[in-house]
Amino acid sequence: MDLIGKYSYAGLTYLVWRGELPSNEQARMMDALLAVCIEHSLNAPSVDAVRFVASCGVPLQSAVSAGVSAFGDWHGGAIEQAAQVFQDGVKASQVGGRSLRATAEDMLSGYRKRGEKLPGYGHPTHTVDPRTKKLIEVANETKLRGAHLDLAEIIESLTEKYFQRHLILNVDGCMAAIISDMGFDWRIGKGFFIVSRAPGLVAHAYEQLYYDKPYKAPRWDEVVYTGPAERPIPGK
Amino acid sequence: MDLIGKYSYAGLTYLVWRGELPSNEQARMMDALLAVCIEHSLNAPSVDAVRFVASCGVPLQSAVSAGVSAFGDWHGGAIEQAAQVFQDGVKASQVGGRSLRATAEDMLSGYRKRGEKLPGYGHPTHTVDPRTKKLIEVANETKLRGAHLDLAEIIESLTEKYFQRHLILNVDGCMAAIISDMGFDWRIGKGFFIVSRAPGLVAHAYEQLYYDKPYKAPRWDEVVYTGPAERPIPGK
Amino acid sequence: MDLIGKYSYAGLTYLVWRGELPSNEQARMMDALLAVCIEHSLNAPSVDAVRFVASCGVPLQSAVSAGVSAFGDWHGGAIEQAAQVFQDGVKASQVGGRSLRATAEDMLSGYRKRGEKLPGYGHPTHTVDPRTKKLIEVANETKLRGAHLDLAEIIESLTEKYFQRHLILNVDGCMAAIISDMGFDWRIGKGFFIVSRAPGLVAHAYEQLYYDKPYKAPRWDEVVYTGPAERPIPGK
Amino acid sequence: MDLIGKYSYAGLTYLVWRGELPSNEQARMMDALLAVCIEHSLNAPSVDAVRFVASCGVPLQSAVSAGVSAFGDWHGGAIEQAAQVFQDGVKASQVGGRSLRATAEDMLSGYRKRGEKLPGYGHPTHTVDPRTKKLIEVANETKLRGAHLDLAEIIESLTEKYFQRHLILNVDGCMAAIISDMGFDWRIGKGFFIVSRAPGLVAHAYEQLYYDKPYKAPRWDEVVYTGPAERPIPGK
Repeated sequence: MDLIGKYSYAGLTYLVWRGELPSNEQARMMDALLAVCIEHSLNAPSVDAVRFVASCGVPLQSAVSAGVSAFGDWHGGAIEQAAQVFQDGVKASQVGGRSLRATAEDMLSGYRKRGEKLPGYGHPTHTVDPRTKKLIEVANETKLRGAHLDLAEIIESLTEKYFQRHLILNVDGCMAAIISDMGFDWRIGKGFFIVSRAPGLVAHAYEQLYYDKPYKAPRWDEVVYTGPAERPIPGK
Repeated sequence: MDLIGKYSYAGLTYLVWRGELPSNEQARMMDALLAVCIEHSLNAPSVDAVRFVASCGVPLQSAVSAGVSAFGDWHGGAIEQAAQVFQDGVKASQVGGRSLRATAEDMLSGYRKRGEKLPGYGHPTHTVDPRTKKLIEVANETKLRGAHLDLAEIIESLTEKYFQRHLILNVDGCMAAIISDMGFDWRIGKGFFIVSRAPGLVAHAYEQLYYDKPYKAPRWDEVVYTGPAERPIPGK
Repeated sequence: MDLIGKYSYAGLTYLVWRGELPSNEQARMMDALLAVCIEHSLNAPSVDAVRFVASCGVPLQSAVSAGVSAFGDWHGGAIEQAAQVFQDGVKASQVGGRSLRATAEDMLSGYRKRGEKLPGYGHPTHTVDPRTKKLIEVANETKLRGAHLDLAEIIESLTEKYFQRHLILNVDGCMAAIISDMGFDWRIGKGFFIVSRAPGLVAHAYEQLYYDKPYKAPRWDEVVYTGPAERPIPGK
Repeated sequence: MDLIGKYSYAGLTYLVWRGELPSNEQARMMDALLAVCIEHSLNAPSVDAVRFVASCGVPLQSAVSAGVSAFGDWHGGAIEQAAQVFQDGVKASQVGGRSLRATAEDMLSGYRKRGEKLPGYGHPTHTVDPRTKKLIEVANETKLRGAHLDLAEIIESLTEKYFQRHLILNVDGCMAAIISDMGFDWRIGKGFFIVSRAPGLVAHAYEQLYYDKPYKAPRWDEVVYTGPAERPIPGK
């Protein structure tokens, strides 16, 4: 109880996940990391799930629960995927005694050869992601940046060479690099997304429950049927 | 194991819920009850929840789970609400020694006075619900119909007198009456809807996962923002 | 983006839920409110749900989602119940032009007469709840306390008179009073619990997934069967 | 509607999943497949999840939904894993023009070399699984058995040669082989488990909600804490 008031909620999240109290710098970084994806809109599938479930006459937590269940590989999953890539990369660099740049070249040539998508890079609309800029600023100020963020930026600078177009380090990738520098296991990456988005899911559930119509559903004329035409039932 | 092959799956559902083996008639009725809501389309919010969650890169059961969580008061909930009404009504008739018709008149005049909606009656498009007709047919043939379905039909015949328009006994109401005649507690009414719809939710999850695009979301230009206009951040 | 770094994550939660930026005092109060229930252990049913689901080979968010779905009326629900009581009480006092004390006496005599449990009061082990003390301290320092917390404390002081034993204002009741003083609708009370506990659920899911055995289940000899004895299958 | 009464619920599940009406034999097989895992007890983690969530004051569907979310890779997942193995095996045999036996030997030697567990084989207690026997009986009688079940049995007969002990074809493996012979995509394997177990989850949720105590949780003295001992808070 002595912790309340002394540490921010985000700072205590660090305690719960790491078993250690955060320094002031770590607590500040946690606040920035959790704040960065707090906002979103109906064009995220988790929010649509919340809205549809909330429209059915269920308690608030049921709708939020459905939204959380939507945080799969393609919706917030890039944080853990990218964190794994960066952690493997830094480890490989240390074990092999090679520079981060040489390691990055190896990694990118592997991705190009396998035709795989690089997690944590690229954005449909942003060419500079203001959230990334801000997170890196805080990581610099708190002196928490380290080899993982360095590697992430080197990879960004090499994307044009390997993929013919510049892929920006996006917000998932940036979070991935910073939590790696903070010593988090990549497998808790999804946790950052879950906690960060929870207030937004609650807000959407609340709005749908109390300010919107029940039983939200597309109208029949909005549904496109793609199956076979009507068929006779055999033996009739 | 001796039960498999001897009893249909629906018949065994009776066993699991009641602790007694069903007669052939009860098993046949269970099959009809569970079959009657197996089909539906995208214009049910549970299905939309399944679709959005499935589009996020999650396992099949996660998407189905989100759909099940949407079976709230306004989506399948009428079965238990109507079953409670019928069970209370039949009990009141027996305790008070009054006819079902007199009881029905009391009930309807209560609903009219309180301005409440009668659960299990009315349908936006059907004037005769073919599913109801079929269920009643099976209930008659299996001789499982009893006081609850009688009461349900008497109420239907009185709706015009009390509400100025004929409200048909819909499929929820019909299921409610029949499960009451079979001796089910009204509080397991939702269970019939859950089991009945489960194959449909699975089908939608499967189709979305393997035959549709990931990350299903409305486009930005489809989202209507209703909040305040952009405001300056104080102290900037 | 200008908000990140300037506002804590908890402060931004205020923005997302209210549509207004918090003052420094409101942001500080939010941090204390969300911090206060961040910690818990296996003896909360939501955590057990997380643990069992996580043991089945599912992604992290599935296990957390199951935990969130457990935040029902009896698990975190007292916040919204108590907030409703306090908001109704303060409104009644203002409308009727009666003192908070007289209003509290009316309320308590109603609860006693109806034999109902007063939400937000009493604790199985604590006689003074250190979390409550802390929250009230912050509410005093930030000058956010108002009529709702006043009413809550008056009610506490009267519990012995009406219920023959002192019932402390517990942490749920205290949160309820403070969020009411901050102007939150009681119906978003569960949201505070959800966001607050989310990091804990993530930690339990993570630990179960990566540091515990799969397929967590009670052993057969721990299950107590209370049904009928083995019966013959008719017609065999 | 013409289908109700004519087809069992399990038969209509075939229609919903395949888009074709089942023959009488296919419908009978569906009933056996869905019946075979309908029963279970508290020693399945999905049931524990249902029980803990149901104890929190939530609606029935929330508890069932949490149970469904627990059907992960290690809880019902063996059906789809084994079905994939059998479908790949039969395809390899057909493409390569090799006998099922030769194919089975290739597969098993691969599993042995990679040290991988063979999905669908082995059971902690049964040496003959009565459910498997029954399912195979129905598959034989309906003449639905084919190359996949043949392959599954050949593999079983070879397990001792490759793994030094006889591993029985368990119920998951048997279901996997039969649904493969029926032409189902292995990726809908989990759907059979979900639908099959749904009535059981409903029964547990109902019993917990209405016949058991709220807020089910281990007592403090049952929780074993494995973290570090109490530490001072720095700066106090």
